[in-house]
Amino acid sequence: MLFVELIRKKRDGRELSREEIEFIVSGYTHGEIPDYQVSAFLMASLLRGLTRAETAALTGAMLASGKVLDLSAIPGSKVDKHSTGGVGDKTSLLIAPIVAAGGVNVPMISGRGLGHTGGTLDKLEAIPGFNVHLKLTDFRRILSRIGCAMIGQTEDLAPADKKFYALRDVTGTVESPALICASIMSKKLAEGIDALVLDVKTGSGAFMKDPNDSEFLARLMVETGERMGKKMVALITDMDQPLGRNIGNALEVVECVELLRGQFAGSEDLLELTLELCGWMFFLGGRTASQDEGRALALEILRSGKALEKFRDLVREQGGDLRSIDDLALLPRATHHAEILAPASGFVSTIECERMGMAGVILGGGRLTKEDAIDPAVGIVLHKKVGDTVSAGEVLCTVHYNAVERFAQAKPVITASYSIGAQKPQARPLIQKLIQGKSV
Amino acid sequence: MLFVELIRKKRDGRELSREEIEFIVSGYTHGEIPDYQVSAFLMASLLRGLTRAETAALTGAMLASGKVLDLSAIPGSKVDKHSTGGVGDKTSLLIAPIVAAGGVNVPMISGRGLGHTGGTLDKLEAIPGFNVHLKLTDFRRILSRIGCAMIGQTEDLAPADKKFYALRDVTGTVESPALICASIMSKKLAEGIDALVLDVKTGSGAFMKDPNDSEFLARLMVETGERMGKKMVALITDMDQPLGRNIGNALEVVECVELLRGQFAGSEDLLELTLELCGWMFFLGGRTASQDEGRALALEILRSGKALEKFRDLVREQGGDLRSIDDLALLPRATHHAEILAPASGFVSTIECERMGMAGVILGGGRLTKEDAIDPAVGIVLHKKVGDTVSAGEVLCTVHYNAVERFAQAKPVITASYSIGAQKPQARPLIQKLIQGKSV
Repeated sequence: MLFVELIRKKRDGRELSREEIEFIVSGYTHGEIPDYQVSAFLMASLLRGLTRAETAALTGAMLASGKVLDLSAIPGSKVDKHSTGGVGDKTSLLIAPIVAAGGVNVPMISGRGLGHTGGTLDKLEAIPGFNVHLKLTDFRRILSRIGCAMIGQTEDLAPADKKFYALRDVTGTVESPALICASIMSKKLAEGIDALVLDVKTGSGAFMKDPNDSEFLARLMVETGERMGKKMVALITDMDQPLGRNIGNALEVVECVELLRGQFAGSEDLLELTLELCGWMFFLGGRTASQDEGRALALEILRSGKALEKFRDLVREQGGDLRSIDDLALLPRATHHAEILAPASGFVSTIECERMGMAGVILGGGRLTKEDAIDPAVGIVLHKKVGDTVSAGEVLCTVHYNAVERFAQAKPVITASYSIGAQKPQARPLIQKLIQGKSV
Repeated sequence: MLFVELIRKKRDGRELSREEIEFIVSGYTHGEIPDYQVSAFLMASLLRGLTRAETAALTGAMLASGKVLDLSAIPGSKVDKHSTGGVGDKTSLLIAPIVAAGGVNVPMISGRGLGHTGGTLDKLEAIPGFNVHLKLTDFRRILSRIGCAMIGQTEDLAPADKKFYALRDVTGTVESPALICASIMSKKLAEGIDALVLDVKTGSGAFMKDPNDSEFLARLMVETGERMGKKMVALITDMDQPLGRNIGNALEVVECVELLRGQFAGSEDLLELTLELCGWMFFLGGRTASQDEGRALALEILRSGKALEKFRDLVREQGGDLRSIDDLALLPRATHHAEILAPASGFVSTIECERMGMAGVILGGGRLTKEDAIDPAVGIVLHKKVGDTVSAGEVLCTVHYNAVERFAQAKPVITASYSIGAQKPQARPLIQKLIQGKSV
């Protein structure tokens, strides 16, 4: 097989066979096809699109490039959740303990933040000692013992994706639904799960800002997962303003622990999304007869304190300092705080979410390139969200920072991301659409 | 400037500025941008297209990557011809001496054959001793002395094109009119010419088989050349059957010398195209008041023997063995000959030109990869061309070969390329379209 002929085939809009796609993935992963040919292929794939069958074949080939966890020795079903990324989205830290406390295993392999979006691994690492780099044997052991475990991508799961993603990142070929689907799904399917709940974000803080694009990607992932024999559900959810109250790694852990303690005030949207997602996970995991029952179960578990207990188990098992959970003041804290005041009275009409996320990056809480170090302590606490009334001079949000010059840079960005209007804005539904796999 | 942003810009169909294109060409040529990013850019350019301005900027940047010959010290105008490649197209070997004998300089930098198409350099090298690898100083000296010189691309002219072309060849990004235009025009403009006549082939033996594609490319090259201040004309010419009588390097030299000696029989189409192209070159070079007069002058020069004399000068100046021109039997000759006979009586309805070219490659006369060695002696002499009447058993063509097994492979290809029908096929005009630059 001449690789250049496969590039030309895709370039001309023709469909590649499963064997041809496997040849590409295997050839590139083993260094037999040079990156300059693969990048041309990726650009042709982005611009010409991949069919459903090609997307499934690509996902399967990437999955087959590494190990697939066999969790069959662990009793009970295994269900995971994946979000396409947003600002203030800390649902994973809540979902894993809630669902595990309800008896469904959650083997969760997460990513880091990049650009304006945060990442679960960075949030977990804000807890002193928390280790996200477990070996798969330890991952399996913890999962088996407490029903959940949360780690980063390892070398042995879908290594092809790692190589393809690094190339896509520098060749302008990230923004292809098919390539995104193959990247996400190959990693998730390698977890050895029975079902997956997808949280596909839409709005100003989402990777995909157009709801049609979000829905296209969601359907593609649901169909691809189903082809692989998984139960699949995707929710299209609003990311037009940050989720919950806190943005920033340690601050987000604080919000989660407070929520696990039953303090829901200011985190209503976060709670709502968490319950919705948990509901689907319980239902897909066969724990409840419907999503509604699953949702009720999640709330019950949360209220009972069992989810907090499970989160403490998780922190303990993964080497984290439990004292910092029991006394949140022991988590990393920024040295300075500054309040951003409302310039006028009225209603908060928008909080530009990507801009707010970038403000967090400027403060040092995120990264622009994969190599950037991050400061877990910094961030933003939102006191006013979209639709809230404000009086001129009232506090919109509090900025937690360590470096004065970074605050100086971030302040105008934060200020500009809020806009205040005379009319109460129309509420955007948090859950915009539900896409169920056929087998669900 | 972040190169990945430029890739994304072109990917999304936006127009790049001249500075951005110069950054790309310069960065890649100097090894500052890796090939895997450039190949993604090339694929995006192929699929999204480049605007006229982008094409001109790319051509200019490639031209500026190397030397531009300054031939102003040589009196008289300098005009070249470029063909997009075909089978049996040996017009360059005729045009250079005819036009030079008429007083217009022809500084010709040519290429080699690849795939089914032949190349001027390979044909010239069939003449024992003929050196196409002259230094630019020798090229200039010979041009100044006899009015023409014919060499291959040197390292110092448009080096960027060499690098881009090598990458396009292995990444499925050859077939872009804009990239083809920039590649051809940057090399031709580096010759320091005043005018250029383009022979853009169309039909089964052409690189572009659709006349609309040929015309698009022709117009693009004419406009690009004009933006650079050159007088430009393009002819769209038929390459639906081989041009002239002989295919194969030494055999094509034979046909040219015979034509220069006044033996026109069997080479009428070759003669016709040569006169047309020479007519335009004389006109664009300011030698005649019209193309018609230029054409008449070309025929007069050919008949007078002055063109043959000029060709002998060229061979002598470039180290070729003049005896092989004066006695064509001294050119490389194949050891075997075989006749291909007509399977039926009727009219020759088609000679599939690409297939016939590939038969020449199979015999050893061409190359599939740039590294292949070629056999100058082998080839095919056509006794029947499209529209000719044939009787069953009559000779269609004679195959000149050295290796029996190669002939065995080539024979069915040659046989299959001829088709014989009961009706005389409609004649295709040799010159299908004329595209004149605005300044012409």
